[in-house]
Amino acid sequence: MPTLGQNQYGKAETRVVRVTRDGATHHLEDLKVSVALSGDMDEVHYSGSNAAVLTTDATKNTVFAFAKEHGIGSPERFGILLARHFTESQPTLTRARIRLESYAWERVPTPGEGDHSFLRDGRGIRTAQVTHDTEDGWEVLSGLTGVTVLNTTHSEFHGFLRDRYTTLAETRDRVLATDVTALWRHRWAGPAEDRDWNASHAAARRHLLDAFARTYSYSLQQTLYGMGARVIDHRPEIDEIRLSLPNKHHFLADLTPFGMENDTEDGAVYFAADRPYGLIEATVLRDGATARIPIDATNL
Amino acid sequence: MPTLGQNQYGKAETRVVRVTRDGATHHLEDLKVSVALSGDMDEVHYSGSNAAVLTTDATKNTVFAFAKEHGIGSPERFGILLARHFTESQPTLTRARIRLESYAWERVPTPGEGDHSFLRDGRGIRTAQVTHDTEDGWEVLSGLTGVTVLNTTHSEFHGFLRDRYTTLAETRDRVLATDVTALWRHRWAGPAEDRDWNASHAAARRHLLDAFARTYSYSLQQTLYGMGARVIDHRPEIDEIRLSLPNKHHFLADLTPFGMENDTEDGAVYFAADRPYGLIEATVLRDGATARIPIDATNL
Amino acid sequence: MPTLGQNQYGKAETRVVRVTRDGATHHLEDLKVSVALSGDMDEVHYSGSNAAVLTTDATKNTVFAFAKEHGIGSPERFGILLARHFTESQPTLTRARIRLESYAWERVPTPGEGDHSFLRDGRGIRTAQVTHDTEDGWEVLSGLTGVTVLNTTHSEFHGFLRDRYTTLAETRDRVLATDVTALWRHRWAGPAEDRDWNASHAAARRHLLDAFARTYSYSLQQTLYGMGARVIDHRPEIDEIRLSLPNKHHFLADLTPFGMENDTEDGAVYFAADRPYGLIEATVLRDGATARIPIDATNL
Amino acid sequence: MPTLGQNQYGKAETRVVRVTRDGATHHLEDLKVSVALSGDMDEVHYSGSNAAVLTTDATKNTVFAFAKEHGIGSPERFGILLARHFTESQPTLTRARIRLESYAWERVPTPGEGDHSFLRDGRGIRTAQVTHDTEDGWEVLSGLTGVTVLNTTHSEFHGFLRDRYTTLAETRDRVLATDVTALWRHRWAGPAEDRDWNASHAAARRHLLDAFARTYSYSLQQTLYGMGARVIDHRPEIDEIRLSLPNKHHFLADLTPFGMENDTEDGAVYFAADRPYGLIEATVLRDGATARIPIDATNL
Repeated sequence: MPTLGQNQYGKAETRVVRVTRDGATHHLEDLKVSVALSGDMDEVHYSGSNAAVLTTDATKNTVFAFAKEHGIGSPERFGILLARHFTESQPTLTRARIRLESYAWERVPTPGEGDHSFLRDGRGIRTAQVTHDTEDGWEVLSGLTGVTVLNTTHSEFHGFLRDRYTTLAETRDRVLATDVTALWRHRWAGPAEDRDWNASHAAARRHLLDAFARTYSYSLQQTLYGMGARVIDHRPEIDEIRLSLPNKHHFLADLTPFGMENDTEDGAVYFAADRPYGLIEATVLRDGATARIPIDATNL
Repeated sequence: MPTLGQNQYGKAETRVVRVTRDGATHHLEDLKVSVALSGDMDEVHYSGSNAAVLTTDATKNTVFAFAKEHGIGSPERFGILLARHFTESQPTLTRARIRLESYAWERVPTPGEGDHSFLRDGRGIRTAQVTHDTEDGWEVLSGLTGVTVLNTTHSEFHGFLRDRYTTLAETRDRVLATDVTALWRHRWAGPAEDRDWNASHAAARRHLLDAFARTYSYSLQQTLYGMGARVIDHRPEIDEIRLSLPNKHHFLADLTPFGMENDTEDGAVYFAADRPYGLIEATVLRDGATARIPIDATNL
Repeated sequence: MPTLGQNQYGKAETRVVRVTRDGATHHLEDLKVSVALSGDMDEVHYSGSNAAVLTTDATKNTVFAFAKEHGIGSPERFGILLARHFTESQPTLTRARIRLESYAWERVPTPGEGDHSFLRDGRGIRTAQVTHDTEDGWEVLSGLTGVTVLNTTHSEFHGFLRDRYTTLAETRDRVLATDVTALWRHRWAGPAEDRDWNASHAAARRHLLDAFARTYSYSLQQTLYGMGARVIDHRPEIDEIRLSLPNKHHFLADLTPFGMENDTEDGAVYFAADRPYGLIEATVLRDGATARIPIDATNL
Repeated sequence: MPTLGQNQYGKAETRVVRVTRDGATHHLEDLKVSVALSGDMDEVHYSGSNAAVLTTDATKNTVFAFAKEHGIGSPERFGILLARHFTESQPTLTRARIRLESYAWERVPTPGEGDHSFLRDGRGIRTAQVTHDTEDGWEVLSGLTGVTVLNTTHSEFHGFLRDRYTTLAETRDRVLATDVTALWRHRWAGPAEDRDWNASHAAARRHLLDAFARTYSYSLQQTLYGMGARVIDHRPEIDEIRLSLPNKHHFLADLTPFGMENDTEDGAVYFAADRPYGLIEATVLRDGATARIPIDATNL
């Protein structure tokens, strides 16, 4: 009989919004939460007996109830609360992985009428993944996705290998653009340890942006390493980071048929292409740390 | 024989990026341009003769060439340049409609290294539509889409009509959220008249956001009218505005089965629903103006 | 004071699935329904009074209740039932426009166990739009979208106009591919008249596909006209059809740098491009009929 | 200094279409190909030296050239050709992973004019992933995604665990619907071994659909296991399969406020919900086989 291997289940993409009122000043937290539970689940697969199954509906209810009872605070904190609850409350559940997306909002000021209006901030999405395994312990990942950045210069690309199928021209000045997806792993002792997850995330994000902007780039790989190394160097709480950087190609429009030069020196016109695109992915580790973030975790 | 009715053709969704260098300070303009041309096109439809057809490929080339030669400046200005070019250069083309999306970027500062790094600003997309018809003249529309806003209070909904299928409870305090799509029509005398399109757009956007935030709302229709009226009242150059506002429902999570109250008074937890959603659409006009924006122009 | 222009509201994108059991043989109907109501709605916009407002929630409830009580049958029939209900039941509602998408499923046979298993058929979506206006009467549109077709030959493109920005090479044998969106208008006397909407739709779809496949094409415009004319010529119940055909470019890959010819004669390799794309749109009318389908109705 | 961990790069999402002419009968193959290469890439990350880097542009060119020179045949065969080429031709490249999507087309018959017209078949996408590592050898995965199936009956759900947050009612007759994503691993000795990949895929797909349709289900987990076990039991060339099955909830519409019963016995009306959804994932293995497909490989 075929064997059951790794399995997990839960409610995915629950959208929970938490409003907290501090007099006329309101605060807004906006998350998408996906729960994946594992444990002693042979029977439900083999025979359809649900005796060990906490329903996915209940995992959804728990998300709303916990948002009310405990507040959110940060995706990492909220994920830790949820993961611990599931693994501690049901003996059949030995592992809980909580994935979270957090959507940022900025205020639209309404002086004299309190502070209760918000504009969704579209500059990327904050992500987190918290896993608790009753045997393997805790893992907390933080990240971001959809952060689109572009340098109009300080990017070259040449000296590459040439095979039969290589036709690309070398360039000394190109546009470099990407949508940053990053996921980093915290060194963390478990729920007994407190941490300012929001400050840690804001700092890591700032370092990623700054390293992208300041790296004089000879390849997107070099820029990627520079971004990852910057985070590892400046954030002692982070041991590992994985980056996935699509090379959003901006091709110089060929205007020579129209008697125009389209050189970069006084500015130029580019065609922003969709597909195909280069895709550069790598992990950067603190010296001595072990890589734990899966290869495709930044492509989900 | 069946008759040919209204027809148009052109290259859609050309993504053009224009970099302008002012020493070490670079400027970035990022557009999507769709060209639709009409004119004496019976033959190409009836017999396949292309003698009157300017290729869609040429319209795309024109976008790149014009971005280099004339610069962009604003989507409205660039659309006007293109529309005029097509209708004036080919006798078979009597009408050109240019649709544009403009993507905003903010700077990532790199002091000491010039200013050439950018972060895509995701707080909505600026839109424009410029039409030149050799008979009917000019029409310039400006707009925005994907601007997501939310009020955590100052929204009530009650006193509505009740039929056999009405089960909705009345509410005195709800979350009101929407993705604003708006399109407004300029009074404009044609290319001889200059205008600061960017300033006009920034002001209209500000009025829309402020009116959304400050309206104490008894229905999304009332908020919509308040937003449109604010623009008409404050911007003499705008005669008509159409708004499409999905009601992004945020339902109070029912926590009573868990012994919790989830009232709004000290903050509450909401389920952010996807579909279905209410959709509220209307045109607001300057007194005496004629409505010209099509009913579905804000749904494209 | 700014004036209120055209306005409409209702619940959009209600997803209703209807199962009908005929013993062990089950039937499945799967729709997305969007309701837009208009009428005497000044007050709700100007003052927020909801006295004339049927809630969008009630329009959603009506969709489910009608699906149970009256069945669906076809998107057109179901839209007619809903439109009539709204305009006849509330004096404040004078116009109802119902948009519908219908998703096809095919059977997965399970002999011996009844017939209750289905596979979603992804070959395009059937659409309909029914409008009832107490003054203007009825309009029934049917259509389809997302039907992707491709001819590997019998398509040429040459003899086109050449301006300064024209660089395209002529071709005598190209791939022609498009995603068909079509919307056609029925001649129809109102609810007193019966019609087999499903048979009418199946025939129109078949004619569109066959005309695309059989037209030896010198331009996509010619193919479009051929498709529309075929429907008008063969379906007396249809007076007008509008088509929107993106030219899904398939560019011959340039293999000459690798010493290969990539000619079409014995088959060739193409790069399927995303954006930009040509976009060809037109209305085809029965001789003497009036065009009523809006220009952008096929772009929603 | 931070260390470089696992890294890979290449051109993603190259869309290649191959037409083969057999007289007037044409054949169409339509793929999306993503190349990811790994090897001795420290220098490009640390210093930006591209000496070991085959450009992503060259990997794209290779896709087109190979499609012409060698034909496609099946995504698995084409992936094997590409993976072998990259790892054998460049000493710096020690691992190549090729991901492929294959889009099916059916014929639109045009008797008397040859056979060159096609309709895109939207009933899911065929996938493959071929990896060659000069040390670890070969891995060939096949799969599918976007195959949407639904049973209108023969699905129950009850007897589940109840905690404080459980409110779900038990049901003896529900709609069960899902979008199947599956990925299975072949036992395969390397390029020396021939295989009919298309026949193997068609059979595995058929088994998955049939097992979904025929399983009398007490939980989606049980259905999942039944689908996976069916493939393992019937296809000796497949050792492992991973399935990801979202539970596309169809909730019975509550019609009691309108005096209607909406029971399933004579058919019923359902609300097809989007989010949140249950997500059930598991691996099924041949007895004794080792699990190699990553946990999230079916979520990409």
